[in-house]
Amino acid sequence: MSRFGYFGPEGTFTHQALLTVPGADLAELTPYATVAGCLDGIRSGEVDAGLVPIENSVEGGVSATLDNLTYGEPLMITREVLLEVQFTLFVRPGTALTDVRRVLTHPHAAAQCRDWLAAHLPQADITTDGSTAAAAAAVADPDSGYDAAVCSRIAGELHGLEALADGIADNTAAVTRFILVTRPGRVGPATGADKTSLVLFMRADHSGALLELLEQFASRGVNLCRIESRPTKTQLGSYCFAIDAEGHVDDARMAEALMGLHRVSARVIFLGSFPRADSGQPDILAGTANADYAAAQQWLDRLRNPSS
Amino acid sequence: MSRFGYFGPEGTFTHQALLTVPGADLAELTPYATVAGCLDGIRSGEVDAGLVPIENSVEGGVSATLDNLTYGEPLMITREVLLEVQFTLFVRPGTALTDVRRVLTHPHAAAQCRDWLAAHLPQADITTDGSTAAAAAAVADPDSGYDAAVCSRIAGELHGLEALADGIADNTAAVTRFILVTRPGRVGPATGADKTSLVLFMRADHSGALLELLEQFASRGVNLCRIESRPTKTQLGSYCFAIDAEGHVDDARMAEALMGLHRVSARVIFLGSFPRADSGQPDILAGTANADYAAAQQWLDRLRNPSS
Amino acid sequence: MSRFGYFGPEGTFTHQALLTVPGADLAELTPYATVAGCLDGIRSGEVDAGLVPIENSVEGGVSATLDNLTYGEPLMITREVLLEVQFTLFVRPGTALTDVRRVLTHPHAAAQCRDWLAAHLPQADITTDGSTAAAAAAVADPDSGYDAAVCSRIAGELHGLEALADGIADNTAAVTRFILVTRPGRVGPATGADKTSLVLFMRADHSGALLELLEQFASRGVNLCRIESRPTKTQLGSYCFAIDAEGHVDDARMAEALMGLHRVSARVIFLGSFPRADSGQPDILAGTANADYAAAQQWLDRLRNPSS
Amino acid sequence: MSRFGYFGPEGTFTHQALLTVPGADLAELTPYATVAGCLDGIRSGEVDAGLVPIENSVEGGVSATLDNLTYGEPLMITREVLLEVQFTLFVRPGTALTDVRRVLTHPHAAAQCRDWLAAHLPQADITTDGSTAAAAAAVADPDSGYDAAVCSRIAGELHGLEALADGIADNTAAVTRFILVTRPGRVGPATGADKTSLVLFMRADHSGALLELLEQFASRGVNLCRIESRPTKTQLGSYCFAIDAEGHVDDARMAEALMGLHRVSARVIFLGSFPRADSGQPDILAGTANADYAAAQQWLDRLRNPSS
Repeated sequence: MSRFGYFGPEGTFTHQALLTVPGADLAELTPYATVAGCLDGIRSGEVDAGLVPIENSVEGGVSATLDNLTYGEPLMITREVLLEVQFTLFVRPGTALTDVRRVLTHPHAAAQCRDWLAAHLPQADITTDGSTAAAAAAVADPDSGYDAAVCSRIAGELHGLEALADGIADNTAAVTRFILVTRPGRVGPATGADKTSLVLFMRADHSGALLELLEQFASRGVNLCRIESRPTKTQLGSYCFAIDAEGHVDDARMAEALMGLHRVSARVIFLGSFPRADSGQPDILAGTANADYAAAQQWLDRLRNPSS
Repeated sequence: MSRFGYFGPEGTFTHQALLTVPGADLAELTPYATVAGCLDGIRSGEVDAGLVPIENSVEGGVSATLDNLTYGEPLMITREVLLEVQFTLFVRPGTALTDVRRVLTHPHAAAQCRDWLAAHLPQADITTDGSTAAAAAAVADPDSGYDAAVCSRIAGELHGLEALADGIADNTAAVTRFILVTRPGRVGPATGADKTSLVLFMRADHSGALLELLEQFASRGVNLCRIESRPTKTQLGSYCFAIDAEGHVDDARMAEALMGLHRVSARVIFLGSFPRADSGQPDILAGTANADYAAAQQWLDRLRNPSS
Repeated sequence: MSRFGYFGPEGTFTHQALLTVPGADLAELTPYATVAGCLDGIRSGEVDAGLVPIENSVEGGVSATLDNLTYGEPLMITREVLLEVQFTLFVRPGTALTDVRRVLTHPHAAAQCRDWLAAHLPQADITTDGSTAAAAAAVADPDSGYDAAVCSRIAGELHGLEALADGIADNTAAVTRFILVTRPGRVGPATGADKTSLVLFMRADHSGALLELLEQFASRGVNLCRIESRPTKTQLGSYCFAIDAEGHVDDARMAEALMGLHRVSARVIFLGSFPRADSGQPDILAGTANADYAAAQQWLDRLRNPSS
Repeated sequence: MSRFGYFGPEGTFTHQALLTVPGADLAELTPYATVAGCLDGIRSGEVDAGLVPIENSVEGGVSATLDNLTYGEPLMITREVLLEVQFTLFVRPGTALTDVRRVLTHPHAAAQCRDWLAAHLPQADITTDGSTAAAAAAVADPDSGYDAAVCSRIAGELHGLEALADGIADNTAAVTRFILVTRPGRVGPATGADKTSLVLFMRADHSGALLELLEQFASRGVNLCRIESRPTKTQLGSYCFAIDAEGHVDDARMAEALMGLHRVSARVIFLGSFPRADSGQPDILAGTANADYAAAQQWLDRLRNPSS
């Protein structure tokens, strides 16, 4: 049985995302109060792997995760998980919507579900405090004085509550991307639809330097999924770039791009190659498939050694 | 007399930065509890201008500022201010270092000054709470039970305290960059060492699209100072780019680059041209000075109309 | 009535091409023995315009024309003419194919029509000498001893001969491109399907320099029709580039590309903008039409002067 | 003993250049009347290698050589030779300058030495005909009626003439570059200052296609020495590119660039890697030396297989 850590407490969206990871149902799950705590738990061997958020479609990158992976001891990403950040109205079993007088939730959740609450619970008193997971715990106690919690599905279920309405956020839900992190090791096999995650430090801080890095990808036909600038923490105006690119370290185009980046960058941090969680397929340009690279290598070998 | 807003409360580093802006000593200063509140105060005309943080050399970009400028009603940046985030040990006048038994400060400040405090106040009890500005206010009260506060210079001075030791952070201080924002209007004159601030939305989310945007700068000899990706909030994997580039909208190379960006981007948000706060001078490549552009225009005019 | 020069003598393919130029039928036509002679005749005012070959689909560029336009006194290209280099079998009126026993032509023409001659005139004696125009002149004389000439259509017609078979070259005919040249003056109006002809000298002879020139076109969406390297005649390994690009000097994308080239090149020779002779239409990329440039200029003007 | 062919006849500058090739003094030398004849002599095995001109600093590329190497059966370049095209005044032994009344030479040579002849032999009658080698042969015959020949050094020496004045061209001499060609085989070892010669056919005839090819060189740090466009002979406006690039097929940066070109081009013809004849040293950019490539490969290998 393996041990998984996650950015907790129990009932967070990270917890919910972790339960979609194969094997998590049989694993020992350990919540950590901070992203850094979870990543250090992986490094120390307390857990075999850990799930932390890295990016949200509305809020952007999670700096704590990016910076810890960049500046902490080496770790490796082995999987990504996408989760719609959806809110559910939970009650104690037996409570009907018409019985709900007092609702407890976190301020963010209250803000995101404002219209729904106004339409469906116009008379209810909305209290905001703590976390959505804590709200679920409180509602579970009949003496709490609260009738309903707005929280994640998992938080409600954890506390034996019953869902009255799902997906009650006013706008289409934001999506959070989580990564499963382990100690560095052998990269998993290519699946044909993978991503490779990197952090790049430039040799010089001029506009041409970033262009040069991007051309290392472009000249090999490697598409980028994400680019996120982060301060190098040395001085204002100095940045490194967290990049996800389409392809696997075992794909020829990615391998050559990585070597090119290694040659022209001050530093390349390789954070892993892993299957894409979305349904996207790589857009492989003419001349950049593995077979094209193999044919080019064969051609070169014959140029160098015609008699072979 | 003009009215300036800032991201408060009184005694914050933003407040301290604002006092370095010419005219701030004669202006009416209004603190706002949030960045969004300050920017809305400018939009509504409550204040004529406002100072908010946009970037820190350690923490990175300030998302609240970037997103509000990107997605809110148009505003314009007219100035930037750099400030070293430095901590000072403040006491009530008359207190000597050897008298300090209890220190109050904010947790971040305590963490950043840990070594100094251990070396110089090994016996002192360090309490962390609220904000550094609140710590200074508390220490000003002889009945508070606290002898010293670790806070910004301005917070200590505001409360009539006396500095015992300056620059007590363990590492070289981080630098925060602030921007002075107004309602849109006529851009100030070029000074020869300016920056232009933009947000760019790409037509398509592929790696070539970012490369194409960067080439619009490169082909005109415009250097970039900063590039920061932000989610477009529509879907995971869709980004826009907050960019600061060297030069003024009245510089020919910048003007042509801006028009090029306008043509190839889905959208360009122009946030203003303003003098650089650092001592840097633009690195103008051969053939990209205003005179080179003027000569090229003259040459073209003669090609089109030889008799003129 | 205007005076046209051409690379002669009478009956050459250049002569034939010139007759397709509007107004040539009413003009005074002057043959010149050399390309340089024709171009100097234009410069001196002996003729108003002149037609010379610049490129052939098999032989490549015509160095004499390219170099004279590059290094001689300025001239301007106002039109291009494409002509299939086709051969015709000409006889004196009344001669039948079965009567042809002796054929006269130029060695190149004999080589290119070898199969046809072998198939249709297997018994004939083929003599090669002088030029195809001279062959036509000779055959016109009944005492010449020759029954037929392989020559251009115009040469045969000039000498009152009769065509027995047209298009007798063994392979699809090569195409030659000719240019009509005048003294420098006002460029003709844009037609929507134009070319601009340039010679570019780089500031430095490194691979990046050529790339930089090509990027000046690419970043404005200007496609190239032709690029031809020529020695600068200063030292081995130093080249200039004769370039034809899609568009007219009055097209915004071309104008901006030209100004960019003027800024980054050691020298740009503008040889004119003129209608394309082929049926090709310009491939105008998104964001690079005249309207896109005008919209970008308007947008920039409003940024610079919001109250206008 | 080896057999060398050359573009003759005896006494040409090609002959003179061949004598500078190591081993040529002991070899059997065979002149060929045409470049094509010489190259076919190599293909058929009549000679082991052949020297032909490929480029002149004033006239440009030698189309006959470029096209034969491009479209004929494969051959390989193993060496290049540079020669200043210099003219010498030769007489029969015993003739003094004051005795020279009639000079014989080729029209080009007469044109290039016009000023010298006017200054030093103002009374002499200058006859132009045939070739400079034939002029030397004629002058060797006392009954020829000619006193002096303007020709190459080797032509004069071949016919037992005596040089009266060397380097008499009016302008600094043009330089011709010759190539030594063999049947395809194993490429010679890298020397650290080599060139690789290629012909590239693009997948599509648009301006971006050439840019893409050039970026394959640039992204690996390979500099270009020469680029020469040639028609593909299929239709007007379709070009291939004869390119010389700095480096050897055994240099890592060149190998990767070649493979990249193979992937993105319609066709790459490899014509060989050989030592540079000039004294130039390669300009190896940071990160593109063989050691940088080897380090990048090692780094990649460890990423892929951490336990190795």
